[in-house]
Amino acid sequence: MQIIADNIQITNPLIAEALDEMDPLPVQELAKKCEAAGAGIIDINPGPLTRDGEKKMSFLVEAVQEACNLSLSLDTSNPSAMAAGLEACRKKPVINGFSLEPAKLENILPLATKFDCDIIGFLLYPNGMVPGSAEERLNLAVQLFEAFNERNIEPQRLVIDPVLVPLMWEDGSRQAMELLTVIRMLPDLLGFPVKTVAGLSNLTSGKGPKEKKLFLEGVYLPMLASAGLDMVLMNILNQNTVSVARACDSITRQGTFSWEEVP
Amino acid sequence: MQIIADNIQITNPLIAEALDEMDPLPVQELAKKCEAAGAGIIDINPGPLTRDGEKKMSFLVEAVQEACNLSLSLDTSNPSAMAAGLEACRKKPVINGFSLEPAKLENILPLATKFDCDIIGFLLYPNGMVPGSAEERLNLAVQLFEAFNERNIEPQRLVIDPVLVPLMWEDGSRQAMELLTVIRMLPDLLGFPVKTVAGLSNLTSGKGPKEKKLFLEGVYLPMLASAGLDMVLMNILNQNTVSVARACDSITRQGTFSWEEVP
Repeated sequence: MQIIADNIQITNPLIAEALDEMDPLPVQELAKKCEAAGAGIIDINPGPLTRDGEKKMSFLVEAVQEACNLSLSLDTSNPSAMAAGLEACRKKPVINGFSLEPAKLENILPLATKFDCDIIGFLLYPNGMVPGSAEERLNLAVQLFEAFNERNIEPQRLVIDPVLVPLMWEDGSRQAMELLTVIRMLPDLLGFPVKTVAGLSNLTSGKGPKEKKLFLEGVYLPMLASAGLDMVLMNILNQNTVSVARACDSITRQGTFSWEEVP
Repeated sequence: MQIIADNIQITNPLIAEALDEMDPLPVQELAKKCEAAGAGIIDINPGPLTRDGEKKMSFLVEAVQEACNLSLSLDTSNPSAMAAGLEACRKKPVINGFSLEPAKLENILPLATKFDCDIIGFLLYPNGMVPGSAEERLNLAVQLFEAFNERNIEPQRLVIDPVLVPLMWEDGSRQAMELLTVIRMLPDLLGFPVKTVAGLSNLTSGKGPKEKKLFLEGVYLPMLASAGLDMVLMNILNQNTVSVARACDSITRQGTFSWEEVP
């Protein structure tokens, strides 16, 4: 399972300040930490970027690239900022992401073709609403796949994020279990080994004790892994969760088992 | 998920000695610890009991019952010792267990009817060999179910142990993943919500560092839980693994989520 670090995001005050001041150092320090902690990809999430979007996204991409050798995933709903960021990437990036929302179909999805890169598709309704059942999620996956077909985009470019919801929601635990079914069924449903990604911290977002949140995330991650999840978006500085991800690999990877690969 | 404590077993030198000397105290102390640690059931495994089997099994059952209020599962291949132990049980016990081995079909399985209790059925060939694939395991499950039908035993009495094998076996990780498929498919295959149990320590048996073994067990347990496992046989004194089991419950249980139930 590949780990996408979600650490470089606008909700981190250090990153918000660095972006305001266009100061690359705090961004680079964090990127180095993410690489050292075992990230496979670093997600850059500067929010909607309502002002100077292109400049700011390029700045972040350049800053991270100077500090580490990882691939990037770029997360903004601003299409011109996204394009500028993709343009600045040295390695093949991932677009994070699009949904059936008309503005995203029109402005974000075509960037996958233009920049020949993978794109994360969220199983959300066109109005941004979260689906309530496995069946609804699977229907939305078929619609994302059709959006690819209509535009002649290679299906292998699609990475599906089934949209994990908080356990604290009224039916959160039901949805958490159904999500596993969705991940398990997607390859058969779409007829190819479609990749999947999940944002792990969504599981415990809302109020709650931090230690219990981390513990629950480390328990849910093996469930996701055994369902076939390919990539997890998470705080790479949570060492125990990273160890859990590695231990999942040593069980789900179909090769000769070795204690040396167990953290 | 119900936890069956596997602590009271003949491979524990304290238990072996207590059984030799018919001294109930060490057995009772351990039983109390198991209850305090959160066991739902205590397994009593005195081995094959080649001498004084009836007396020894009754002794252990009495000793544990005097120390705690839990139900018991009894694990011996000696049918008369099993019968004597079942006779001594105050609460409804679980017979652990039988397989397609002719001696067990003939001598152990009928005890489920005689004592009107659940019985664990192992997915093993009649000669004791471990099946090599999910398909083989599912075939064996059908044969266990047929053995029940032929003897007019209520199918609800059956608890299937799909037989976890060590990761260190040549194809251990493949089998670990296939086992999840088996657990997931059994209810549909047999046409009723058949219960399942797994012996967690099997996953890491053989050489290996103890800390890594415990870590891997705590990572595999959520995979088993999300596949639908009902009961896990494990060392109840491994506190972290017990916490993992409880956290699994708070995710897989389909009710309102509460932080208070998360360990």
